[in-house]
Order: sequence, then structure tokens, then C-alpha cells
Amino acid sequence: MLLDTDPYLTRYAERVRGMSASEIRALFAVASRPEVVSFAGGMPDTSALDMEAVEAVVAQVIRDSGATALQYGGGQGRAPLRELLVEVMEHEGVPAHADELLITVGGQQALELIAKCFLDPGDVVLAEGPTYVGGIGAMTSHQADVRHVPMDAEGMRIDLLEEALDGLAREGRRAEYVYTIPNHQNPAGVSLSVERRHRLAEVAERHDLLIVEDNPYGLLDFAGETFPSLRQLVPDRVVYVGTVSKTIAPGLRTGWIAAPGPIRDKLVLLREAADLCPSNLTQMIVESWLRTQPWREQIKRFAAVYHEKSVAMLDALATEMPEGVDWTVPSGAFYVWLTVPDGIDTSDLLAKAISHRVAYVPGRGFYADGAGGDHARLCFSYPEVARIGEGISRLGELLHEEIELVAAVYGDDAPQVRPRRTGPATGVGG
Amino acid sequence: MLLDTDPYLTRYAERVRGMSASEIRALFAVASRPEVVSFAGGMPDTSALDMEAVEAVVAQVIRDSGATALQYGGGQGRAPLRELLVEVMEHEGVPAHADELLITVGGQQALELIAKCFLDPGDVVLAEGPTYVGGIGAMTSHQADVRHVPMDAEGMRIDLLEEALDGLAREGRRAEYVYTIPNHQNPAGVSLSVERRHRLAEVAERHDLLIVEDNPYGLLDFAGETFPSLRQLVPDRVVYVGTVSKTIAPGLRTGWIAAPGPIRDKLVLLREAADLCPSNLTQMIVESWLRTQPWREQIKRFAAVYHEKSVAMLDALATEMPEGVDWTVPSGAFYVWLTVPDGIDTSDLLAKAISHRVAYVPGRGFYADGAGGDHARLCFSYPEVARIGEGISRLGELLHEEIELVAAVYGDDAPQVRPRRTGPATGVGG
Repeated sequence: MLLDTDPYLTRYAERVRGMSASEIRALFAVASRPEVVSFAGGMPDTSALDMEAVEAVVAQVIRDSGATALQYGGGQGRAPLRELLVEVMEHEGVPAHADELLITVGGQQALELIAKCFLDPGDVVLAEGPTYVGGIGAMTSHQADVRHVPMDAEGMRIDLLEEALDGLAREGRRAEYVYTIPNHQNPAGVSLSVERRHRLAEVAERHDLLIVEDNPYGLLDFAGETFPSLRQLVPDRVVYVGTVSKTIAPGLRTGWIAAPGPIRDKLVLLREAADLCPSNLTQMIVESWLRTQPWREQIKRFAAVYHEKSVAMLDALATEMPEGVDWTVPSGAFYVWLTVPDGIDTSDLLAKAISHRVAYVPGRGFYADGAGGDHARLCFSYPEVARIGEGISRLGELLHEEIELVAAVYGDDAPQVRPRRTGPATGVGG
Repeated sequence: MLLDTDPYLTRYAERVRGMSASEIRALFAVASRPEVVSFAGGMPDTSALDMEAVEAVVAQVIRDSGATALQYGGGQGRAPLRELLVEVMEHEGVPAHADELLITVGGQQALELIAKCFLDPGDVVLAEGPTYVGGIGAMTSHQADVRHVPMDAEGMRIDLLEEALDGLAREGRRAEYVYTIPNHQNPAGVSLSVERRHRLAEVAERHDLLIVEDNPYGLLDFAGETFPSLRQLVPDRVVYVGTVSKTIAPGLRTGWIAAPGPIRDKLVLLREAADLCPSNLTQMIVESWLRTQPWREQIKRFAAVYHEKSVAMLDALATEMPEGVDWTVPSGAFYVWLTVPDGIDTSDLLAKAISHRVAYVPGRGFYADGAGGDHARLCFSYPEVARIGEGISRLGELLHEEIELVAAVYGDDAPQVRPRRTGPATGVGG
């Protein structure tokens, strides 16, 4: 199931406590066997793409503009692509001008360049807890001090963000930026409520704050809804990150940053030091796709596929999970965030899960501070619908066993089993 | 002539003294007009590629493995590609194992990751003077202190390298690494002699030194010769950088690092923080090219094209340049390094050159310390053969005028005009 080539897992592997690199490698070698149902990698279902259309687009690019496609390009990325990506942003209601855009190697390079631009060792960034493992990786690779702001079913708790900002101010410090994934957050599977978006915008103004708005999933809402972007609310305070990885294909490694002019200029210089320029070839494929193909319908098709898969996972969770296990209910994108009862550690459990032929990413991967041991990210986007129930059933069986084990070991001192959630989640947990 | 999308020039632009960003933009807008002969960008001549073969290879990749090509991949890069690149290295006599390789977004990302891995602010790197502008960019973007070691016609002066190392030791400091481009160096157009390679290897052992060996041009020797790589001589001390940008095409943005295991592991983690993974699509295109196409013959064809262009440039230089102008004589790759008489500054001269319809990169772009004002890099790889003489003739005319102007202004106090070189270069200048 591609698990052994899953970049998320390698990043996570760093954070698995008490495992050596070779143990981790052995574990993932087992996990990559076809009999394992993997909810680990955050991978889109590229089989939902019209592959004949892709082939036609790619061949046309080489035929019409081969010499340019194979040559170096400019560091900011091609102007025609930037103009088309402005249309993609418009489709979601996010305003931008092509001059403000910088094409990157996926959303990850955007996060890296932003971190390199703004962070010196020890600088503080505030981020949702949990948050995207690659976002943590980009920031901590620049030795940032990533602090988490808890979430609930409406996304980041803005009241707790303000507390954190006030706390920093009392220390005579500040946050270099707030990193947020407002739509269908990875890994929590919840979105920032409209009311909180407005509050976050106000807080940004009041505290003179920069916001990094990472938006890979905004167009993958199951009901086709979109939410006001922070860029729309406080454009001068937002560095916006987009990507075609989930709306076209990640293999094209094409993302972008939209930022105010002076920030964009700095980022262009950093990108040239990082890799000179994005591939003209992959840029021109994305251009041609956006110009000649029904991309809005393709995105709808993706959303429908993921909706169906989410239903399969949520149905199975409701049937298979023991009392005391909790999860979020996504309204878009790829992820369910699972909470297990006290006494169970999802990092410790992973090897057993894989021997039960099911894989996930332990929650600890999504925190910079070692929290998250009672959580797991379940990604439903990649496995076939038919196998999702099977995987959840295996995980449910394992968790039943573990809960019994905890009870047997601890007896009456067993950690309190929290009530099982059945409706939409109200909390993401700590 | 693609000048306005030339990443080298933007990097250079940072270093042009006394010019604002908008002045530089205006200058390069003029320079990109078709009537200007540009010796500026270090761009391969992609028209020498068999474009029908490229189209067939690309279509085949999508047809046979579209879903994989469009999906995420592993951070180290695909194993089949790493195995094929080992064959490319073997073709040049450089030993490696596929496990030691990490696929990067061109050679530039390799230089960036190495800099990020080894350099903290203020750390010293020793590099040839002049050296690759993008190498300087990668290192200085990590706030390194880049110090230059002078070159002559046999490449880096190893005696002066030792002096620099001894000097650092006396300050209680050390060089984090030595950055070298031993083959057909960019911008100097000379190669490190075999004897000096052995001396450099000895110095590395004696001083416990790491060498970053950047080798984009080793296979583009006009006589088809190859030289022993430093990796061959002291494998444990070398982080080797390769790229297909000059042997296949830069638009594929595919380079690689070959490094000892522990360094490779660190670099893989940094790469995942930087952009998760290289594009499966472009990797698979390179794989298919190396597996199905006569790539050794294609490289010979490239070398022959560049040889012809170098002859055109050297012939024109011999005819058109005034007394006092000097240049190196390349035996491979892309570059001639020009030295102008005292009193002429190539940064100041660039605007005039462009109004004379010829462009180059001023020498100052290739030094981290502001030196190089009496040099220019002339790249002959991209312009058509027929236009090279025309461009050199325009530059010669301009330099004639400038030398007269210097003489008129200074009279008898005019700086001493150095004797003009006619044979192979013995010096690269300071």
C-alpha cells in the first residue's frame, strides 16, 4: 500500500519514542505488505483521475513546448501558471493577484521557505495541537519552538490562542507567526468555524500577528461548501499556502505561496537558493490541465470519492469501536482523529496493530512536544472502500483486547474509561 | 533569450552594487529582447535533445505507471532511479552504491541541503574564487562565512587552501567544508589538475576535512576525457553532488547527492522537511530515459555542440578583444572567464553592454566578498553558433571604447594594461 515510500511515516518515525531506525524500518517493511490495510499515509486516490486525459495533456506539453518545458525557468514560477492558480483560489473565494504568487515544490516547500524566512533558532510559533507533521518538521528543522494551541470541533480555540499570546508577552516574547490549517485540518479532520475566523483576524490585528494559512483541503468539502479565508479577512497579515497535490496530483509537486509583495520578494530569493526554480515541465502540465480539462468537475469527483470513503470509515467506527474510544467526524478531506482510553499508547500499539494487519499514524507525530500518545490519525482517502471496514474491524478488535488488558492489569485502578462519542465530535482532545 | 527567466541572473542581481530591484528588473527586461545576444544564463542547449524520444518516454511513463507517477514518493527518491544514476556515475569512473544516493531537485537543492546540514551562522566554508553563484547563495542563505581560495589554470591553488586552513587553525577555527567544482568549473572554465586532486585528498586527510564535490559538467569534456573524482580518492570525506540538468535536461529538476550513510540519513530528513519528496513523474521520466534511450550518445552529442560553440567564442575573442583583455580556454562545458583591464568594472559596464545588445554575468556575482569587478562570465552553451561571433564582436567594440575612455580620463596615470593572453590561460585572476 505504498507505505514504505510514505514520507509522512518517515517524518513520524523520528518521533516514535524508544525505537531505533532499524526497528522502524523493519516495522514499515511489514506494514507495506498488501495484506495490511493502511490508514497511515495522507495520500490522495489518484485512481480517481482521468489517466487518459493526463497522458494527452503531458504529451501535448512536450509536443508544443518541449524545449521550454525541459529548460530552466524563473524562481517565482511561470506567470501563466500563477494566473491560472488565481482562478483556482477564486473558485474557493480567496482573492489574489498573480504577482503575489510564488510557485513551490508542493505545499511542503512553501512551509519550509516561510520557516526559513521568519524563524531563527528558539523563535516561537503557535500552531494547532495537533497539527501537520510536515509543518512541524519544517519549523523544527529551523530550530523553532513550536507551541500548540488546543482545538475542539470548531478548530483552534482562539481564547486559548490569546492566552498563549498574553503569556508570551509577559515573558517579553512574541510569536513569529501562527500556523493554521483552517479547512478540514490535518490530522484533526475539523474546520475553523466562521465566527472563529473573524476572531482570529481580530486577534491578529490586535497583536500585530502574522498568520500562515495552509489550505490543501479547502476545495474538498463533502457538501461543496467553502469558508471565508483568513487571507480574505486580513490580507496584509496572511501568508497563504496552496497546493495541487489534493486537487490534481501530488506527483506534480506543485504548490504555491500568496504573500504581500515584500515577503514574496524575500521568499523568491530563498527559493532560488533552495532549488533555483520549479520544473517548467510539471508547471506546464498543471497549466495545461487547468486550461483544457474540466478541473472543477474533477475536484467534485475527488470530493465524492472521499465522502464515500469517510462514510465507510465512520460507519465501521460506530460498529467496531469499543466503549471509551472517540473520534472526530470530518465534513471534508482525508482524516479522522481517534482518541483512545487512558492507559493505551498509540505509539506502543503500532507494532501490534501492524501484526493485526492495520496501520495508522500515532498521534505523537502531530505534536512537537511529545503529546498525542492517546490519539491516532486514520486516513481514509487511499484504501479502497471495500477494505476500510475490514481495517477498522481489525483495529476495533485490537482496541477491545487492549482495553481488557488494561482492566486486567490495573483492576479497579484502571484509568477511567471516557464515554464513547456517537454524534459529531465536540472535542479533539489534548 | 529567456534572460528574464534566468535564475542565475536574479541571484546575481542581489550582488550588483548600487542598483535597486526595479532598476535591475528594467535592465533584464531590456536584456530579454531577442536582438540581445546573451552569454549570461548557464543554460544547456535543449534543442540538441531528441524531442520525439522525450515525448515517447513521457507518454510511456504515464501510460504504464500513471498512478504511481502522480502519487507521493519516498524522501530519498526512487530506488530504480538511484540504481541507474550509479551507472551514470560509473560512466565517469565515480564509484557509488544506490543506498548512498539521495535524489534532489537539481544540484541546487543538494547544495542547499548540505549547507543546512552543516552550517550554522558564521561558520566558515572555503570555496574556489570565483565559484558558482548558486553555491554561494545556498551557503550565505544559511549565514555562512564563505572565503575564497584563488585558482589558476589548474584549478584551486591547493597551497593557498592549506594557508587558509592554517590561518583558520591559528584563529582557533575550522572550515566546515571545502566546496569545489573540480571539472570545467563554473564560472572559471578550468579543471582541477590530477596532481592537485591527489594533493587535495591528502590535505583533507591531514586536516580532517569534508569536501563537497559539485560535478555538473564532468561528462561534458570536449575530448571525452574524465578525471579521477575526489569521491574516488577519499570516499569517506566527500559529499558528492550530481545532476541531469546538463546531461539530459534542467526542466526535469533532478539531481542527487552521494554521501556516507550517516550523512545521507540526516540529509534525507532535511529533504523531507524541505519538500517531502521529489516528483515521481520527473524521476520516472529520467529512469525511462536512462533505461530506453542512448544516453551516452546523447551526452556525446551535447559535448560536440558545446565544443563547436566554444571554438566559435574563442575564435571571436582572439579576433575581437582589445589588448589587455584576457580569458580562460575551456576544455569542456559552458564557460569562458573574461578578465578586463584595471579601470573597467564589469558590474558598471553591464547596462552599456546590454544597450550594445550583448549580455554577460559580471564577475562580482561569483564572489561572496565583493571581488570580481574586473571579470565576466561568458556562457557559450545557449546562443546559436552563428550569433556567438556577433555577440563577442559587440562586446569587443564596447571594451575598445572603454579602454580608450579610461586612457582619456586618466592619461598617463591610466592603470597598467596587462599583456593579452593568446595561449591557454595560466591564471583565473583574483
